[in-house]
Amino acid sequence: MLQPKKFKNSWCIKSPKPLFLKIKCTGFHLKWERQISPATLFQPLRAGTWITRKLIIISRVPNGHHLKKRETRIGCASKSISMKALVYHGPGKKTWEEKPRPSIQKASDAVVRITKTTICGTDLHILKGDVPEVTDGRILGHEGVGIIEETGSSVTNFKPGDHVLISCISSCGKCDFCKRGMYSHCEQGGWILGHLIDGTQAEYVRIPHADNSLYHIPEGADEEALVMLSDILPTGFECGVLNGQVKPGDTVAIVGAGPVGLAALLTAQFYAPAEIIMIDPDDNRLTVSKKLGATQTINNSTQNAIDRVKELTGNKGVDVAIEAVGIPATFELCQYLVAAGGHIANVGVHGKSAALHLELLWAHNITITTRLVDTVTTPMLLKTVQSKKLNSKQLITHHFSLSEIMKAYDTFEHAAKERALKVIISADR
Amino acid sequence: MLQPKKFKNSWCIKSPKPLFLKIKCTGFHLKWERQISPATLFQPLRAGTWITRKLIIISRVPNGHHLKKRETRIGCASKSISMKALVYHGPGKKTWEEKPRPSIQKASDAVVRITKTTICGTDLHILKGDVPEVTDGRILGHEGVGIIEETGSSVTNFKPGDHVLISCISSCGKCDFCKRGMYSHCEQGGWILGHLIDGTQAEYVRIPHADNSLYHIPEGADEEALVMLSDILPTGFECGVLNGQVKPGDTVAIVGAGPVGLAALLTAQFYAPAEIIMIDPDDNRLTVSKKLGATQTINNSTQNAIDRVKELTGNKGVDVAIEAVGIPATFELCQYLVAAGGHIANVGVHGKSAALHLELLWAHNITITTRLVDTVTTPMLLKTVQSKKLNSKQLITHHFSLSEIMKAYDTFEHAAKERALKVIISADR
Repeated sequence: MLQPKKFKNSWCIKSPKPLFLKIKCTGFHLKWERQISPATLFQPLRAGTWITRKLIIISRVPNGHHLKKRETRIGCASKSISMKALVYHGPGKKTWEEKPRPSIQKASDAVVRITKTTICGTDLHILKGDVPEVTDGRILGHEGVGIIEETGSSVTNFKPGDHVLISCISSCGKCDFCKRGMYSHCEQGGWILGHLIDGTQAEYVRIPHADNSLYHIPEGADEEALVMLSDILPTGFECGVLNGQVKPGDTVAIVGAGPVGLAALLTAQFYAPAEIIMIDPDDNRLTVSKKLGATQTINNSTQNAIDRVKELTGNKGVDVAIEAVGIPATFELCQYLVAAGGHIANVGVHGKSAALHLELLWAHNITITTRLVDTVTTPMLLKTVQSKKLNSKQLITHHFSLSEIMKAYDTFEHAAKERALKVIISADR
Repeated sequence: MLQPKKFKNSWCIKSPKPLFLKIKCTGFHLKWERQISPATLFQPLRAGTWITRKLIIISRVPNGHHLKKRETRIGCASKSISMKALVYHGPGKKTWEEKPRPSIQKASDAVVRITKTTICGTDLHILKGDVPEVTDGRILGHEGVGIIEETGSSVTNFKPGDHVLISCISSCGKCDFCKRGMYSHCEQGGWILGHLIDGTQAEYVRIPHADNSLYHIPEGADEEALVMLSDILPTGFECGVLNGQVKPGDTVAIVGAGPVGLAALLTAQFYAPAEIIMIDPDDNRLTVSKKLGATQTINNSTQNAIDRVKELTGNKGVDVAIEAVGIPATFELCQYLVAAGGHIANVGVHGKSAALHLELLWAHNITITTRLVDTVTTPMLLKTVQSKKLNSKQLITHHFSLSEIMKAYDTFEHAAKERALKVIISADR
């Protein structure tokens, strides 16, 4: 954000380039716009109390009162101060509506104009009312790419005009968790986009801790492929493949062939496992799995997955079982698939507890992991996409424009019928 | 075992030193003992068929029959061929009774004369009938030290007279699991002593895969301290401390201050954690815990352990929660104690499943491990005992002779009343 500084009785704003400023005062909106040059000195247009979000400035007012405080926001603005966004209004209710355009609130923020976004299974969970901390009026979405519109004064890695990938995880880079690479538990961030603050299913989004939460998109890179790197690819990779410690020669079972399970399938192949067995009740998804590298598929609505895995592994079980559904039955299934000394890597978002069969597993030398994606591997994944080791576009099945987002939701909500995996939603202009 | 070799019509046994040989023939026992020197050549005392356990040797017999096979065992022996042992006779039933002395069955076996043994909580589980694969007639016990009495022909690391520590885990060193250091799952071994084969609560025990399942006791070492290294110290260390990845500065909670929990307490201190919180309902054990290095103790029969741990950790939880009890309640407690990014290391032997609160933990970046001790760290622990970094004798509270073993069991079964931790049972002579 541009910080105004007091200079005699005036306010000084330093800007690196000419820009429009819009000044709003709570209680009475000023219709005032002018282009300013670097270090322009300007007077308050009318007598009043001027404050920034961070700095409360008190001055004498002309109407007879002596001192008055009023909240004033000063921020960069383009032609319009409103935008369109997908807004949650309680369980089952969402609208594509007009919302105020976000502005810089902290020096470490950036505002990004969204060029492409997508919908996540988690957005559907929110719409079902499963994520109660999401409140009425929240703009959804935590994935996307775009162009930096504005940066706060402390942002140094990015400047307006930069082409960026937005991470679903915002991280300050300074707290104890960030220093351990556990960005998902950042004390001032984590998964907040489209959750605790407004998200990316909009024309603009404010990204806190921009220096640590955005990534430069290499020139000539495919934007659509990179939208997959905001969330699902690091999720499948970090929570499934890395936590599961997939090694060359391993036999891996992935329970759930939705987008995140498929992301685990794609990224598991970095480590040359001998076998990847995909388990899902949807034949279409199993067919996709085969195309994407699965060596075996099991439809667990028609086959007994435990018996089949025993058969495929000479009764030993799998080295790594990746749970990518999020219900007790699939987590419990993994406990019967895993070999002694193996790993169960949970990727699914769970709403209920599951039975842990310690009577079988206590002596089985297994490791179970849980994780909210940290997106620490985003730079690594960007390189794998650029070097064609990872073709993340294979997960995209449908395209929509932002103004068609309600239709995009409809398609994604009926994924089986529509044969949908990931949908790409592009800015209209 | 000393392997006789054919030499003309005689049998040659090479022995590194003079020893007594006892020769038994199935069907008719020979009362024949003599001292032989290295490479003594000896004739069969009477006409008959001579075989070793592995080598069937056929010769002409003098009584008119032409060819005859008889099983003959040749082995080292002392005065008697029977011994006393603690024998399981079904749930709740054990006796101190006469049993045949064990002999070499495979070339990789050793027979060890027990000098000291002990009782494990697992032996009590067996006596309750919780371990159904233990059958009537089984000699119990999987811990002890002793003197090698006899070795099979392929044993190269040990010779008769060697002073050895017996590992509770027998390992062939050759199978896939052994090659990965997962001795507990050895395809021909694992925890078999006092479980699937006769154990150490006896005057003699046969140890399969002797080269990999016994450890030389350094000269001058304290036998009692080393009995603790057969099982409980590697168990607390490997399943609790190593699997829990205890690091300098960590806060560790150990749920259960029995012998294995205390073994975890002792060995956790190798890694300089900042705090070790012991949780147990027995005040005596908590007092012992304080002496052994706990920085905090919580009696969870009188205090809310979750609230107290929150208080002690500034609401964060512990980096490592070690479960050393083996019931659902204590395993579930650990789930509420562990911090984001932390470890739950299961040490307890469980008979039932427990609820895993994935609805809380899925995004908590935690790791849960299970393990049957592999005893891969026995050489490391031997060095820590010798260098006085580990005082394992602190776990010993009671002493008995082998002939008092029923009394020792009685004391161990009433551990709280008797304030018993580990009991040492010494050979009578």
